Amino acid sequence: MIIDCHGHYTTTPAAVGEYRAAQEAALRTEPGHIGVKGIMAISDDEIRDSLEGAQLKFQGERGTDLTLFSPRASWMGHHIGNISTSIFWTQHCNELVARVCGLYPDNFAPVCQLPQSPGAPIGPSVAELRRCVTEMGFVGCNLNPDPSGGFWTGPPLSDRTWYPLYEAMIELDVPAMVHVSATCNPNFHTTGSHYLGADTTAFMQLLTSDLLKDFPDLRLIIPHGGGAAPYHWGRFRGIAQDMGKPPLAELLLRNVFFDTCVYHQAGIDCLLSVIPADNILFASEMIGAVRGIDPETGHFYDDTRRYIDAATLEDESRAKIFEGNVRRVFPRLDARLTKGTTA
Amino acid sequence: MIIDCHGHYTTTPAAVGEYRAAQEAALRTEPGHIGVKGIMAISDDEIRDSLEGAQLKFQGERGTDLTLFSPRASWMGHHIGNISTSIFWTQHCNELVARVCGLYPDNFAPVCQLPQSPGAPIGPSVAELRRCVTEMGFVGCNLNPDPSGGFWTGPPLSDRTWYPLYEAMIELDVPAMVHVSATCNPNFHTTGSHYLGADTTAFMQLLTSDLLKDFPDLRLIIPHGGGAAPYHWGRFRGIAQDMGKPPLAELLLRNVFFDTCVYHQAGIDCLLSVIPADNILFASEMIGAVRGIDPETGHFYDDTRRYIDAATLEDESRAKIFEGNVRRVFPRLDARLTKGTTA
Repeated sequence: MIIDCHGHYTTTPAAVGEYRAAQEAALRTEPGHIGVKGIMAISDDEIRDSLEGAQLKFQGERGTDLTLFSPRASWMGHHIGNISTSIFWTQHCNELVARVCGLYPDNFAPVCQLPQSPGAPIGPSVAELRRCVTEMGFVGCNLNPDPSGGFWTGPPLSDRTWYPLYEAMIELDVPAMVHVSATCNPNFHTTGSHYLGADTTAFMQLLTSDLLKDFPDLRLIIPHGGGAAPYHWGRFRGIAQDMGKPPLAELLLRNVFFDTCVYHQAGIDCLLSVIPADNILFASEMIGAVRGIDPETGHFYDDTRRYIDAATLEDESRAKIFEGNVRRVFPRLDARLTKGTTA
Repeated sequence: MIIDCHGHYTTTPAAVGEYRAAQEAALRTEPGHIGVKGIMAISDDEIRDSLEGAQLKFQGERGTDLTLFSPRASWMGHHIGNISTSIFWTQHCNELVARVCGLYPDNFAPVCQLPQSPGAPIGPSVAELRRCVTEMGFVGCNLNPDPSGGFWTGPPLSDRTWYPLYEAMIELDVPAMVHVSATCNPNFHTTGSHYLGADTTAFMQLLTSDLLKDFPDLRLIIPHGGGAAPYHWGRFRGIAQDMGKPPLAELLLRNVFFDTCVYHQAGIDCLLSVIPADNILFASEMIGAVRGIDPETGHFYDDTRRYIDAATLEDESRAKIFEGNVRRVFPRLDARLTKGTTA
């Protein structure tokens, strides 16, 4: 079985964008606007249409089985509006993902976004995580380390204001993928520099802080192949050593995992040669940041299964990366698969 | 000959820190304080003492010949004080580097920092570049893409406010290394996430903008192995392709170069397998971000010559990386070496 731990609903029906546009319009006339949840009217057929020729088609063509599916990351847009904006938007996005997973229980398992907002307390995120996991069967969440959208004005992940969320994650036995959203800072490109920079930033926050000492059972996934971390593994090993920290394997690798969203063979080979197989989770992020076909290979850049297949790797390691690790990091997914249903 | 294109004067005599502390003290009592240049009293013997047991010793031990030497990057601190703070500090730092290179003309060639300051015009940077190159024989400069120190509140490198600097660089025939300084944002770690994130950010600004179309003769070095760029080369190729841009080789590689400050073999191997040899410049950043010995190899993490020596590489490519490319990117260095003196 091949489980893709990183997919977003990037092909949503038009009503999703329309709901968001209405929120933004209300905020333009009144920046502190407190809305109502309202309705995001989407039929099951519209959902099917949005997936059958897209994610589901690629799953079939690429031979992957199940995708951990979350709302579109670049649209989380935590910097837009206020906490009320974020709560209602997030509830709709998560409920839509739950419907996707209900319609295609063998193909998708749900991961939620959180209603973060710059300067807002973490309580609503804890509540939404709890609602998603206990009422709708979600198996994980996406946590935005920079709700400001590229200005990094909030506290680092090691700050105690985040701790109630980590406590809830451990209680509910779900991991988080640390994943920023779109940037509103013109210095950054969302899926280019902002995503990768945030991945490296989060990794470094974990390396330098005592967060994982305080939460030895926390599990965090650094997406996009860990940002720059594996490529600069020697730098990070050396910095930790200079700081008097234990080796990275001991310091981080009981809690931190990297996905395989690296879109060329040499990058995947670097990842696989540096990071232990136990800490790598298969992922493609399809349909996501890069949608074209690589003229050098004739295949989609984000068909990451091909790179893992082509890599020099023990069968046991490949099986861990494709399935075993994801089931270990997402125990609620494992429980469903063991019971024979992902619904 | 082996030329290290990336070294900072990180081991300065105490008077340097004392000068800076006095500036900061004056700014604490009066945030808009306009100082005077004053004096940074350092003897030639103090300079010799600061280098003989450090950079010069390592050059000898590691078998490298010449280092392009600039003021300590993390101390540029463009976010501290105002433009007057930055001008005086920068003048002293550059003059000190000029003295180093005068004392050891076979070992060091000077690269300057620029008196940037958040929101300040670029004029003083142009003037200092001109002074350093025409009066003191500098061969390049370091350009900070984020003078705010980690809040990224200024314009991207493609903004026209930077253009007078690029015009001067081309007129003077000197390249810039795009290098941030210390971060004052607690989300970032200076030499871990801030440096690498800024490298990737700058790379992406070049990829998405028309800057290199406007300045086809501009030469920029992205340090620290290009941040995350080579590791994610497929992602960047794909993003450019999705944007309808030409291939990266055509779009960027006539102007953009990467150094070899990657502190483990697997990372260097990734860099060398992805980036053409013509675009890679040897560098170690010694003595810099990582100062320890790698227990896995028994050698200093930042002894990057060993990784290049051990890599599978044609002799011709190795010669380009160690010497030829640096001389091509820094023509004023090449002219001196051809004349037989680096002084």
